[in-house]
Amino acid sequence: MEAVTTVMQVALIQIDDYGPWTVTPEPRRETDLQSLQASLFADFAEFVGAYDGYAFYGRFDNMYAVVNEIDPTAFERFQRRVRNSYPVTVSVGVGRASTPVEALDVASERLQAAGSAQDGDRREVLAVGSDEPVEAGSVTVGHFDVVDVTGSLTDRRNAVDVTLAIRRATLELVTYLRQEYDSIAHFVGGDNIIAVCPDIGPGAFDDAIEHVNAETGIELQVGVGRGPTAHVAGDEAKAALERCRATGARIRGVDKLPADD
Amino acid sequence: MEAVTTVMQVALIQIDDYGPWTVTPEPRRETDLQSLQASLFADFAEFVGAYDGYAFYGRFDNMYAVVNEIDPTAFERFQRRVRNSYPVTVSVGVGRASTPVEALDVASERLQAAGSAQDGDRREVLAVGSDEPVEAGSVTVGHFDVVDVTGSLTDRRNAVDVTLAIRRATLELVTYLRQEYDSIAHFVGGDNIIAVCPDIGPGAFDDAIEHVNAETGIELQVGVGRGPTAHVAGDEAKAALERCRATGARIRGVDKLPADD
Amino acid sequence: MEAVTTVMQVALIQIDDYGPWTVTPEPRRETDLQSLQASLFADFAEFVGAYDGYAFYGRFDNMYAVVNEIDPTAFERFQRRVRNSYPVTVSVGVGRASTPVEALDVASERLQAAGSAQDGDRREVLAVGSDEPVEAGSVTVGHFDVVDVTGSLTDRRNAVDVTLAIRRATLELVTYLRQEYDSIAHFVGGDNIIAVCPDIGPGAFDDAIEHVNAETGIELQVGVGRGPTAHVAGDEAKAALERCRATGARIRGVDKLPADD
Amino acid sequence: MEAVTTVMQVALIQIDDYGPWTVTPEPRRETDLQSLQASLFADFAEFVGAYDGYAFYGRFDNMYAVVNEIDPTAFERFQRRVRNSYPVTVSVGVGRASTPVEALDVASERLQAAGSAQDGDRREVLAVGSDEPVEAGSVTVGHFDVVDVTGSLTDRRNAVDVTLAIRRATLELVTYLRQEYDSIAHFVGGDNIIAVCPDIGPGAFDDAIEHVNAETGIELQVGVGRGPTAHVAGDEAKAALERCRATGARIRGVDKLPADD
Repeated sequence: MEAVTTVMQVALIQIDDYGPWTVTPEPRRETDLQSLQASLFADFAEFVGAYDGYAFYGRFDNMYAVVNEIDPTAFERFQRRVRNSYPVTVSVGVGRASTPVEALDVASERLQAAGSAQDGDRREVLAVGSDEPVEAGSVTVGHFDVVDVTGSLTDRRNAVDVTLAIRRATLELVTYLRQEYDSIAHFVGGDNIIAVCPDIGPGAFDDAIEHVNAETGIELQVGVGRGPTAHVAGDEAKAALERCRATGARIRGVDKLPADD
Repeated sequence: MEAVTTVMQVALIQIDDYGPWTVTPEPRRETDLQSLQASLFADFAEFVGAYDGYAFYGRFDNMYAVVNEIDPTAFERFQRRVRNSYPVTVSVGVGRASTPVEALDVASERLQAAGSAQDGDRREVLAVGSDEPVEAGSVTVGHFDVVDVTGSLTDRRNAVDVTLAIRRATLELVTYLRQEYDSIAHFVGGDNIIAVCPDIGPGAFDDAIEHVNAETGIELQVGVGRGPTAHVAGDEAKAALERCRATGARIRGVDKLPADD
Repeated sequence: MEAVTTVMQVALIQIDDYGPWTVTPEPRRETDLQSLQASLFADFAEFVGAYDGYAFYGRFDNMYAVVNEIDPTAFERFQRRVRNSYPVTVSVGVGRASTPVEALDVASERLQAAGSAQDGDRREVLAVGSDEPVEAGSVTVGHFDVVDVTGSLTDRRNAVDVTLAIRRATLELVTYLRQEYDSIAHFVGGDNIIAVCPDIGPGAFDDAIEHVNAETGIELQVGVGRGPTAHVAGDEAKAALERCRATGARIRGVDKLPADD
Repeated sequence: MEAVTTVMQVALIQIDDYGPWTVTPEPRRETDLQSLQASLFADFAEFVGAYDGYAFYGRFDNMYAVVNEIDPTAFERFQRRVRNSYPVTVSVGVGRASTPVEALDVASERLQAAGSAQDGDRREVLAVGSDEPVEAGSVTVGHFDVVDVTGSLTDRRNAVDVTLAIRRATLELVTYLRQEYDSIAHFVGGDNIIAVCPDIGPGAFDDAIEHVNAETGIELQVGVGRGPTAHVAGDEAKAALERCRATGARIRGVDKLPADD
């Protein structure tokens, strides 16, 4: 099999000096902070979506995105939008590497080299390095959800316990994929978890599902897609997940996976 | 010591028939869904904040709030706002009990009694029961964060690993407080976790911090506040957490706790 | 006929030091300013709507609202929301009088007394005076639109000329109602104009329609409603306007008007 | 002087079947409609701004933009965003011509050919024709405001009367520039009016200012800019307007205008 060059470009967004801002001159109302963070992520997701990337809310004051088809200097536009729309500003680091985690490492290091996130003087840094443009490569996306979540969880248990069960499954999955396959996975609402991965095969997804089931008793299914951007790969993954739901298969997707349909 | 009556009122918000909507007529763009969910939560937090409650994003398609000082029928206003602003609608269940988890149980049951979350015919249900008005009681809020998170995590490790570490600490804390003290705790951004609790004392918070440290190696600190609403209690908790940061104490807050200052 | 006490409460919102901000450190992107102003008005309308008032965008940096059922100090909440959501802050003046225009005069004077809108030191003023609480009174709302606008304008002429025609009709109507009846009227989108009035009768509305027709050749119709709040009166006015559309009548509404149905 | 090819591309956005929606199943709350319209325009301005265009709110249910550097099919992205964010959908017409008004005529005709704005079956039309790509041309932007508005109006008169005075000046200016110079001008907040024009000279702007002064007694000043996009021309115009403010000149801008500085 010929090697596929995978080049991932990952962006890390940090709200500048956010902790101190939230308590100056006195602690700001918690629901206002929740609203601000969520609105900022809503705008970030929209911005990244325009470049066919995927955005994850991370910890809200640190958000990230896998977005291959953007010239990193275009994040200046996002910084300008934030400055002109919000009471806070953001710094951005961008990194490229052959896996999502390595790329995020590079982005993190670039941002850290520009100063601490709590440094009041570090404002609106855009740390993009001098990477070559992203070569044509491929992104692999796995879109997971819980088998029959409504029947097994939502309609039976209270919202806190359902959330806890899904959070535990998410944490096990995210940790496993990060350690074993250098992938970035994230909860995206409901019972859905999305993983952005280097070029890994069906065995890896099978292992991940097994691992989560063994650790938590929760059964996941996954649709897998591949393409030049997170969006294209992710759309294929969603379609494949629909086939899981329809057929009862646990993994569906790209042609390297067991035949389906 | 005289017994304090604690009556918690908890609201559960569910997007109606959301799963099917996200894939009809074909899967919708993931970043649009992320943006929609985050915007909806931003509005929900603002709505709840106007009644001095606290809102948590839960799984985004299921959000909840602890909000004592609202007449449950006022959620009709939120439903109307959503209907007139978004392409989706929401159903709301409200419950009251002496602990947050019990109250959420009641809210969940009321909503489930009105039909499945995936039932295409269940739209804009407002299931509030016929509880007596909330009596004067008190809410206890614990506002946790990680000791020296910037120095120990943010500026040292990449964003994925910091997020994973905080997520693990969060999950352990949330699970523990739910099981041992019938409390609802939730990640609220950065390295912050907020717990809404019945009338528990400093020993409980100490146990929780110990537990998280033993399970994950992460050291938390907590400010504790008490008051008639989540907002009042939470503001006191935030101020107490500032004293932790200033003094190095691990727990600060209401006068029942070890003397501070 | 017994005299009806009409007490109007009007709020004026001004963005603090906005002109200088838009060009500091250099002129900000025009579309960002448009977006900011529109978002701020969207939030203001929502805030005012929660108190059953009506909000008008005015000149965007100066917005106003007729909102009887609010304690003026509640605008602190709106100021806090803006401070925690936007890169600008707002000052608020509130006035009461027997007509909308007089009430706005009072609000304007109170705000001007606190300093110029371009005074960099005037920030987040809340100038509410010490009026007595609003007595029970009644608001009269007229909801106007153009007779058969789609057939006569929208589908025939280009968008600029339709907009110009409607703007001219609006300006004539607003000026006339302000001069003759101390009313505040405002364009609210499409071909709709809303007037908030003291206790005036059908003859006044008839005069206004005649005046606009004589000056511009455009034929308006109006639904009129009365009630304790702008919202209640306005809802009645909208329902009456629907009856105009259905019956071809030019004025419909409160029982003092010519019998309808 | 060599002829400059001016090709303007104008987009017209219409909310589909909006009038009926606002009263179905019963009239929707006015402040919710205000909020919806303003939010939609905020998003439209942001979308257009990403392509260096200028957006105008028009009548809110009909908005337009001058946006040369966009492939018209890119409006599909805006339509998708609206569909996934709002309870309404939009249709879009795009036209090109040598003046803004002609281009908007073309856009209007294309949209009207696809069905009436009130036609319940006309949904998400994208009527872009088959124009050649926009050639390199130049846009002229005039950015007007009122001379010393704060001193002469804002701090002296009440907000309604200031707004009326500015609206009257705006209407006279917009009408004049539309009739004499095939230009699209629009109020953009405060005391600012922006005109997008074909290649007209300083005499035209001087005439316009004279006309407004003669009709309304209000004295305007204008900065003029020229460039390949509305944004570039508009930024130059803003800078020129700053020079008016600093020097007391009534017109400043491109080199064809009387020498400044």
